[in-house]
Amino acid sequence: MRGVVMYAPGDVRVEEREDARIIEQTDAVIRVTAACICGSDLWPYRGVEALNGPTPMGHEYIGIVEQVGAEVRDIKVGDYVVGSFVASDNTCEICQAGYQSRCIHNVMMGSVGTQAQLARIPLADGTLVATPGTPDADLVPSLLAASDVLGTGWFAAVAAEAGPGRTIAVVGDGAVGLSAVLAAKQLGAERIIVFSRHPERQALAREFGATDIIEQRGDAGAAKVKELTGGYGAHGVVEAVGTEESMWQAINSARPGGYVGYVGVTHGVQLDGLNLFFTGVHLHGGPAPVRRFLPELIQLIWDRAIDPGKVFDLTLPLEEAAEGYKAMDERRATKVLLTL
Amino acid sequence: MRGVVMYAPGDVRVEEREDARIIEQTDAVIRVTAACICGSDLWPYRGVEALNGPTPMGHEYIGIVEQVGAEVRDIKVGDYVVGSFVASDNTCEICQAGYQSRCIHNVMMGSVGTQAQLARIPLADGTLVATPGTPDADLVPSLLAASDVLGTGWFAAVAAEAGPGRTIAVVGDGAVGLSAVLAAKQLGAERIIVFSRHPERQALAREFGATDIIEQRGDAGAAKVKELTGGYGAHGVVEAVGTEESMWQAINSARPGGYVGYVGVTHGVQLDGLNLFFTGVHLHGGPAPVRRFLPELIQLIWDRAIDPGKVFDLTLPLEEAAEGYKAMDERRATKVLLTL
Repeated sequence: MRGVVMYAPGDVRVEEREDARIIEQTDAVIRVTAACICGSDLWPYRGVEALNGPTPMGHEYIGIVEQVGAEVRDIKVGDYVVGSFVASDNTCEICQAGYQSRCIHNVMMGSVGTQAQLARIPLADGTLVATPGTPDADLVPSLLAASDVLGTGWFAAVAAEAGPGRTIAVVGDGAVGLSAVLAAKQLGAERIIVFSRHPERQALAREFGATDIIEQRGDAGAAKVKELTGGYGAHGVVEAVGTEESMWQAINSARPGGYVGYVGVTHGVQLDGLNLFFTGVHLHGGPAPVRRFLPELIQLIWDRAIDPGKVFDLTLPLEEAAEGYKAMDERRATKVLLTL
Repeated sequence: MRGVVMYAPGDVRVEEREDARIIEQTDAVIRVTAACICGSDLWPYRGVEALNGPTPMGHEYIGIVEQVGAEVRDIKVGDYVVGSFVASDNTCEICQAGYQSRCIHNVMMGSVGTQAQLARIPLADGTLVATPGTPDADLVPSLLAASDVLGTGWFAAVAAEAGPGRTIAVVGDGAVGLSAVLAAKQLGAERIIVFSRHPERQALAREFGATDIIEQRGDAGAAKVKELTGGYGAHGVVEAVGTEESMWQAINSARPGGYVGYVGVTHGVQLDGLNLFFTGVHLHGGPAPVRRFLPELIQLIWDRAIDPGKVFDLTLPLEEAAEGYKAMDERRATKVLLTL
């Protein structure tokens, strides 16, 4: 099968890889119909995260089930499926509490590499959710978004306690941040403040439900949120970047007792305990338990109630994945969809 | 009036201070009937926190109202009152959401110094809660505990989401940690695991509701919690120490998606963001909004449903405060009550 492999920072190739196959009897193999490039794929691309030799890439996917192991009960060959970027049994106490991304048997899909024609999905019954049927072509980007960025933004908005009467601020105008805006709107937030300096992203943020845009960053940005909220700060804040500056921008934008949902994969962040202590915020985040939200998100997409696929602003065939990485690295694209 | 003043690390004196008096018309002046020494008073005593010259000490208090400002409406002269260690208006949005310790007009009572015969209480109507009457002598320690350690432990247990069916671990066997055990029990926790190496504190922890005691610390301690909970970790953890080791002990004792309520005033803690990210815990803490819980706690004490005053294991007259500091510093006492 053809698949994306990263050899070194900036060196992404599409090449022949061994076909995905059933290893455990709880596995499925899917024919990937669409995959994408994640903001977190840029960390190794930029040399911020080390690579251990050539690495198959990708952890977001939708596709059609080609094969299932003997112990797979619910997922059938031919099902059109969406899965999360973490495989989970969906039966352990952690999964049952809604934290499937930290399932006691979790498998990070990054270790599989889903930017490929075929992908092995561990724990298929717990991981995959079948759509009601074969989706219309226009739904494919949105279903793919559900697999990671939408599910992640949704989790962040839930962690930020977005809801009626609430003011929610969003740090990060990438695909996850924009998805969090959409989620906050769906969850009923009254006011949604987005930090952004990019006209196109500002426009999509407004389309998704943003009511206010702030161009300042850091302490100045947080001060602006306080100014817009009677001196109190936002009820909840989504952090979707992962740097120390963005973390404090988020924390300091929240009011005391407010909620910060952080989903940017943190890099080089050391949180000063005493400063955090006196903010009095609720801090919750980590790898989003996308599986928790998939049934609801798939239905919203199927009903055309939401259109999260708009975060994709560049579509390329798998063979041109290298150009996709380059476009995201150079910020020419927010989010790249790879067709197969 | 007589009052406690700290001159330097290890140098605590009881001396004449200017009588407390009304400054703002929202103030009250109370005749303190009991005060105490807080674990956080030991930070400057041990030289960990700097002093700016001679400093009046104390932020916990109960007493009888002697005088009220012209704008005080609800609190009356003669009321027997309990207040929190943070004065609050109890009307701003932050207070109304239950975060009175971060009231937009908050005044830290440490700046007043309540280890004294008289104390000025700013924002009296928002800060003080009157008891149903003059308490019997045996209720005085418990009412005093409500002013800080019980309210703090209670908040931590609430932040740790203690409740029916839950396993709660408590890091810290000082007065706050022990109060959190009592709180977790009252809130219905099924299993309460306490980290402690002190036989007397272990005994009081069991009396307050602890079901398991762990003597290991750090990673070994956290591993023991996982072992006791089917490999998952506790549903919620209280952190009542404030060091980097204790923070990670607490975080790592919680299951993914679990709740960590931290109330130890953090000192020298730098939380690694990436490690925190992958734990997936909810982290919430800070200066406890004791005022939120005071009416309920006073009633529980008045009804003799709880006896949190047992955390005091040394009672001294105010004039012997220096010996009280010494006893707590040398761990001869868990918590010292000062009589007036």
